[in-house]
Amino acid sequence: MNWSLDSLGIIHSCYQEKFAVPRQPGLAPSARATLELLPPYNQPECVEGLEDFSHLWLTFLFHQNLEQGWKPRVRPPRLGGNQKIGVFASRSTFRPNGLGLSVVKLESIELQQGVKLHLSGVDLVDGTPIVDIKPYLPWADSLPDATASWAPEPPPLLRVVFDARVEQQLAHHTEGVWLRQLITEVLAQDPRPAYQKNDPQRIYGVMLAGANVKFAFHQQNEQEVIVVLELG
Amino acid sequence: MNWSLDSLGIIHSCYQEKFAVPRQPGLAPSARATLELLPPYNQPECVEGLEDFSHLWLTFLFHQNLEQGWKPRVRPPRLGGNQKIGVFASRSTFRPNGLGLSVVKLESIELQQGVKLHLSGVDLVDGTPIVDIKPYLPWADSLPDATASWAPEPPPLLRVVFDARVEQQLAHHTEGVWLRQLITEVLAQDPRPAYQKNDPQRIYGVMLAGANVKFAFHQQNEQEVIVVLELG
Repeated sequence: MNWSLDSLGIIHSCYQEKFAVPRQPGLAPSARATLELLPPYNQPECVEGLEDFSHLWLTFLFHQNLEQGWKPRVRPPRLGGNQKIGVFASRSTFRPNGLGLSVVKLESIELQQGVKLHLSGVDLVDGTPIVDIKPYLPWADSLPDATASWAPEPPPLLRVVFDARVEQQLAHHTEGVWLRQLITEVLAQDPRPAYQKNDPQRIYGVMLAGANVKFAFHQQNEQEVIVVLELG
Repeated sequence: MNWSLDSLGIIHSCYQEKFAVPRQPGLAPSARATLELLPPYNQPECVEGLEDFSHLWLTFLFHQNLEQGWKPRVRPPRLGGNQKIGVFASRSTFRPNGLGLSVVKLESIELQQGVKLHLSGVDLVDGTPIVDIKPYLPWADSLPDATASWAPEPPPLLRVVFDARVEQQLAHHTEGVWLRQLITEVLAQDPRPAYQKNDPQRIYGVMLAGANVKFAFHQQNEQEVIVVLELG
């Protein structure tokens, strides 16, 4: 059995790089993306009736990782990066066939030139190829009582504070309110890889919605907080 | 972009043919299947820790439909088979890339010879090739408030009754209680294609868990019921 997948569309995302993309969808509800369908899938007929659904499943390729293959066991960040578990017991991006799965919110559909789906709550990096789109059916897909022993709830959040100069920049930014919220939601997830958590001097940078966001980890009242230092 | 998928495993299912397979998972909780992983994915390491999750996502290929391709619009059975909607607004099995997605219950894991996952609540026909396995994460995947306007709830169920002779056969069957329950759950979904709903004389047959089940649609007190006529 060998089956070839075609890219149905491509993601244009506020996540311009892989670093700091939340590890599941919905964790940063302010994250925006547009799914641009490609020919021959970009006919309005293909999405007729889709506006009746609030959420969609996207199946996609972890395109930045495909060349690196997979291993039978992985170290999920949720287990501190030390413990290994089976690749099929994880949502690791390094997996056989390299398929990802995310539920996203459908905000609107644009049919002027081809087909564009405007989405939110995504965890998809810019350029992600989409290989399937399905409506979310709550009576089939929503299992609130399903158990997931070592990942029973979303990861804990860190507090995010902004340097006074950054607050000023945001106040003058056309989409400052949204961008501030996006940065807060994304950084609160603690994007550091587990092996970097003991490096307090380090300054991190990430491209987010066109802004070069520089941040660091400080101790405040014995709690770790993220300080946004600069917006480039 | 063109990416080739490998089959990670194969489904051995109580659904021996496509006819009468429920249209979503979970609708027939008694449905059983075994997912047999294939080399090189059938190493116990690959599923280490999977037993901690109650439910799994399976991504699979609609292998019986792949040759028939897709059309921009489809007629979902839920809309009576007359109204057309976009293929991406449906879960139609005839779709670009031919990918299916089902959440299933993980009953147990067998590691004696290779790896076998025992599953229930499946909607997968025997022989289905599996291309991804992921744990279900309720805090990311369960959205009970998602809206799905024309399919807001499971399809209505028909009443299923058994001919006295069939009841006797089931009473002597080693797995009669389970088989009776399975037949009830499956037939209650009304497996007829929409265009056959006005053919009251027709006798249907389906192979289910090794039994050749013959059934028909009768009127009782102005309600349509399904009568199981024969078990071969």
